[in-house]
Amino acid sequence: MSTSPAKFQGIAILDHKDWKNPKKVEYEPKKFLDHDIDIKIECCGVCGSDIHTASGHWGDITKPLVVGHEIIGTVVRLGDKCTSGLKLGDRVGVGAQAFSCLECGRCKSDNEPYCTKSVWTYSTNYEDGYNSKGGYADYIRLHEHFAIPIPENIPSHLAAPLMCGGITAFSPLLRNGCGRGKKVGIMGIGGIGHMALIFAKAMGAEVYAISRTSAKKDDSIKMGADHFIATKEEPDWATKYFDTFDLIVVCSNSLTDINFDVVPRTMKVGGKIVSICAPEQNEVINLKPFGLLGVSISNSALGGINEIKQMLDLVSKKDLKIWVETVPISEKGVKEVFERMDMGDVRYRFTLTDYDKEFFT
Amino acid sequence: MSTSPAKFQGIAILDHKDWKNPKKVEYEPKKFLDHDIDIKIECCGVCGSDIHTASGHWGDITKPLVVGHEIIGTVVRLGDKCTSGLKLGDRVGVGAQAFSCLECGRCKSDNEPYCTKSVWTYSTNYEDGYNSKGGYADYIRLHEHFAIPIPENIPSHLAAPLMCGGITAFSPLLRNGCGRGKKVGIMGIGGIGHMALIFAKAMGAEVYAISRTSAKKDDSIKMGADHFIATKEEPDWATKYFDTFDLIVVCSNSLTDINFDVVPRTMKVGGKIVSICAPEQNEVINLKPFGLLGVSISNSALGGINEIKQMLDLVSKKDLKIWVETVPISEKGVKEVFERMDMGDVRYRFTLTDYDKEFFT
Repeated sequence: MSTSPAKFQGIAILDHKDWKNPKKVEYEPKKFLDHDIDIKIECCGVCGSDIHTASGHWGDITKPLVVGHEIIGTVVRLGDKCTSGLKLGDRVGVGAQAFSCLECGRCKSDNEPYCTKSVWTYSTNYEDGYNSKGGYADYIRLHEHFAIPIPENIPSHLAAPLMCGGITAFSPLLRNGCGRGKKVGIMGIGGIGHMALIFAKAMGAEVYAISRTSAKKDDSIKMGADHFIATKEEPDWATKYFDTFDLIVVCSNSLTDINFDVVPRTMKVGGKIVSICAPEQNEVINLKPFGLLGVSISNSALGGINEIKQMLDLVSKKDLKIWVETVPISEKGVKEVFERMDMGDVRYRFTLTDYDKEFFT
Repeated sequence: MSTSPAKFQGIAILDHKDWKNPKKVEYEPKKFLDHDIDIKIECCGVCGSDIHTASGHWGDITKPLVVGHEIIGTVVRLGDKCTSGLKLGDRVGVGAQAFSCLECGRCKSDNEPYCTKSVWTYSTNYEDGYNSKGGYADYIRLHEHFAIPIPENIPSHLAAPLMCGGITAFSPLLRNGCGRGKKVGIMGIGGIGHMALIFAKAMGAEVYAISRTSAKKDDSIKMGADHFIATKEEPDWATKYFDTFDLIVVCSNSLTDINFDVVPRTMKVGGKIVSICAPEQNEVINLKPFGLLGVSISNSALGGINEIKQMLDLVSKKDLKIWVETVPISEKGVKEVFERMDMGDVRYRFTLTDYDKEFFT
């Protein structure tokens, strides 16, 4: 059975130089395999990666380029060998990953994003050469493993940003012991940072929002921060907060934002600085080895499918609400979110909605 | 009761420019406090830090400068309020630390080296301004907490290098889960690296010695390495060992020796690269944040007193033998070890011995 069309439609970037003027196009989906499913898309979050990719920051990408990897939709077709238990009509989410081998040690240890055969949801070639296309589109086709049921009480427009931004915030918290009795700093209160604040608080930690200025202080407290630090307004903050943090998750755009002569001083012995930033590909950070005495730094990418399920469970059980602005999808709507994302004018995450009006009327 | 003299004698650096010509001098010890002890020194290991400090790499240091912080000796005087259980005549070891507050959270959590009031065994000012002096000397005076009983079956000349080099190797292994079922790489097979090999094997890990050339292959296997990698001879080693290590302890002189475009590929997801290097103070490393995806790096310093006791226990119970060359202490002997250390001509650690002949005849 199939209710998906032979060709899909999406709002695509046709030229990096003109990335802020995306166009509606029609394209062939990938070949339908036995474990594939088709999803009719209901809405899609807008991720910083979409901007990096659309604008060409991460290199020259195959066109037409259909970005979007925070997808919520309904299963409308199931491959003959699907075994995940998904049924037609199920509401599911898809994040940044569309495929992995599912056989290697990394896949088997809930580390699918680290599988060397990973295919990302858009702009990666499958083994057969097909270049993956994302969620600014009417449908998406992908391996069933990467479609995750969404708990009933999470509205779609709030579920969408969880699928990439959310798990990117959640995984480093989960993997680094965020919980009761821990002091956790969230540095950079943007799209991902605001979710990290909400999650860290829900996980039981004492949460410190760390931003440059006080502009986001009120919002941060509403999101659940117990403390707020404006680093530009308290130049001596690292002395004041000496030996404070078990964990700092850096959610800013770039690790170069961290002053490694300063931040490590705020960490407990054995403390962990984890960045989730996906910077421009050739960015280099400089640090003095003495600055890392007793403190580790690492970079975290996404999270496994099992972690996404744990995150959705937490959001559902605690009825957590992330802060989302919705914009109807269309050439104009995508142009608007690209322009506003490029200026940092978003509090705190966009979800493209009204897919019915654009694609299904 | 006291059998220690009013003045101590040591082989001292009088001028960084002439550091390879140390001279025997007499000096006042620090004021004797209620928790202090005096130790009559039997032998002392030669640590890379001695060279860095003596030569002025770490800045201009108060003279006379008496280095040495791998000290084995006998307790000859106990302060009135000593409570550690040490008795006159006990054989004890002293490492790189001579004092900490013992009251802060770091001290109370076995992290004395991270106490902000730490006084190192040599060339640090105590609160009263006295500049600490180390173990190339007849006696040392320090707080009882930092003198640790040496198990009977460890010969003094083999115990000495454990007190700084040994604990520096042991602490990152202990704190980062080295043990059965873990694949642990030791990068840089020198004084500290060879102890890390011996310890990692004794702790049950599968151990990989990682060196530039094959020159130390035979030695490494004898020390307990299960595998040997010569990175210069196998340029593609990171591909061959992709996804291998739970932990790499970098024991080379400098973190700049790590190619952060290469080494992280050999790590498992969640793997840890821990450096123990104490580089020149202004050394800066460069790395691309993308290189740290799923991998952490950190720098480790010494270890707490409790960890030193655990290490000595392991060495005693498993009768581990580190590889040590002994040189009798004297102006000439210290000159010799300084010159050979400066050339890297040591397999694998020096202990200065025959203190009786130099100081007590």
